[in-house]
Amino acid sequence: MTEIRLFVPAPLARGATIAASPGQAHYLAAVMRRAIGDTVLLFDGRTGEWRARISGLSRKAAMLTVEEQTRPQAAESDLWLLAPVLRRETTEWMVEKATELGVARILLTTSAQSAVTRTNPDRLAAIATEAAEQCGRLGVPEVVPPAPVARVLAGWPPRRHLLLADESRAAPPACAVITGAAAGAWALLVGPEGGFTERELDGFRKLPFCLPASLGPRILRAETAAVIGLGLIQALAGDWQDRPGGRPHDAATREGKSEDVRSVGG
Amino acid sequence: MTEIRLFVPAPLARGATIAASPGQAHYLAAVMRRAIGDTVLLFDGRTGEWRARISGLSRKAAMLTVEEQTRPQAAESDLWLLAPVLRRETTEWMVEKATELGVARILLTTSAQSAVTRTNPDRLAAIATEAAEQCGRLGVPEVVPPAPVARVLAGWPPRRHLLLADESRAAPPACAVITGAAAGAWALLVGPEGGFTERELDGFRKLPFCLPASLGPRILRAETAAVIGLGLIQALAGDWQDRPGGRPHDAATREGKSEDVRSVGG
Repeated sequence: MTEIRLFVPAPLARGATIAASPGQAHYLAAVMRRAIGDTVLLFDGRTGEWRARISGLSRKAAMLTVEEQTRPQAAESDLWLLAPVLRRETTEWMVEKATELGVARILLTTSAQSAVTRTNPDRLAAIATEAAEQCGRLGVPEVVPPAPVARVLAGWPPRRHLLLADESRAAPPACAVITGAAAGAWALLVGPEGGFTERELDGFRKLPFCLPASLGPRILRAETAAVIGLGLIQALAGDWQDRPGGRPHDAATREGKSEDVRSVGG
Repeated sequence: MTEIRLFVPAPLARGATIAASPGQAHYLAAVMRRAIGDTVLLFDGRTGEWRARISGLSRKAAMLTVEEQTRPQAAESDLWLLAPVLRRETTEWMVEKATELGVARILLTTSAQSAVTRTNPDRLAAIATEAAEQCGRLGVPEVVPPAPVARVLAGWPPRRHLLLADESRAAPPACAVITGAAAGAWALLVGPEGGFTERELDGFRKLPFCLPASLGPRILRAETAAVIGLGLIQALAGDWQDRPGGRPHDAATREGKSEDVRSVGG
């Protein structure tokens, strides 16, 4: 039987009884056909992962009694994605994949050639939560509503590397850029379907924290560039990194903790 | 005005006049609103890319007169994907992304825990063609209809590395596996949503060309693993590789040319 993992906002502790959301109750009872007495895993983003037993269940409500901790809370990846707003399904897909890849914050951005500028924040948050439940993370990424990319970068934490997915053929290969950078936290910046304008790119390239990088010889769709760029950062400088000589992920995470974007969403 | 690229099966040469397919005619006339006298780019997978002028156009037919070569044919990536058959939309999405990432062959596979085993070959070929047109490739990947993974591997070219996306935490990180392997051609093997069985995995791990590798600490969906695995191979050992000391991509491609899978699709 597949082990179900659910995110709950309430803090978890042994013996606590938690009311599941109506959606979770429906999922447990109607979709996954669970019964009273079955177990599920819960996580709250703060106290790790816990096994809980279903102590009450209907299609509209479920009570979950917490029994034991299965994993302690651990530092998650401190990786950000500055993602263009794309068509609805494509944005949703990108949020799902970014969550699977361990991103901590998804900052939706608009720029000169954005064809779409609006999102449904509740739906994107639900998609991020569901993807976090499925991929085994101990937290859910924050999805920050769209803001102009210039405003996001105006408040940028100076020590966080910004990998710019640069379609001009002059940019060095992403793997060389990532492995060549100083230890520290990362973010990935991807443009909209129409790309960034030359003027926007010139501005980005002047920013001291911006590292332009090539994602290969083909023209990638925006969402493909986002997923591949995140995968490369995780594989080469993130939490896939348990090679001898690799930079410890936790150090980067701790460094990143004090940073914040000052004006995002403001 | 966006430059339109179209794949045509007929060989291209200066002065040739090519009849576009009905779908391409509709795209040119109705979707992209092109007119007689406008130019498009054409590629045939053999003679490079050519600029052609629209010499006849209705919503059902178009004639294209080839004027000049814009790019010579070049060796493409010799990278294969052994992809599980997934839900229709997910398989289609995976084929699109694999094409963008430069894959030469997509071998669809079934295994013990496959929930889906059929595909629509014509639709997948059309998706691969469209993705190749958009991403600037000079060829279209071959999409090989589903066959049991054991049969595909029984006829495996012994010198082609097979990167196995291995969810057991014992496998070494993919980037170390890729950079540590001898020069040569690559393929990526990804299991279905339910994963490979332990028995299947034991069998794969005994194959001399199989290199089990971890794609990080989270549980990736099958299609995410496919896209990230391909991106890592391209970035670290494929045609993103123009770093000093990198293995030349063309050498690997030439080596791969004489190989073939003997029993695929048989």
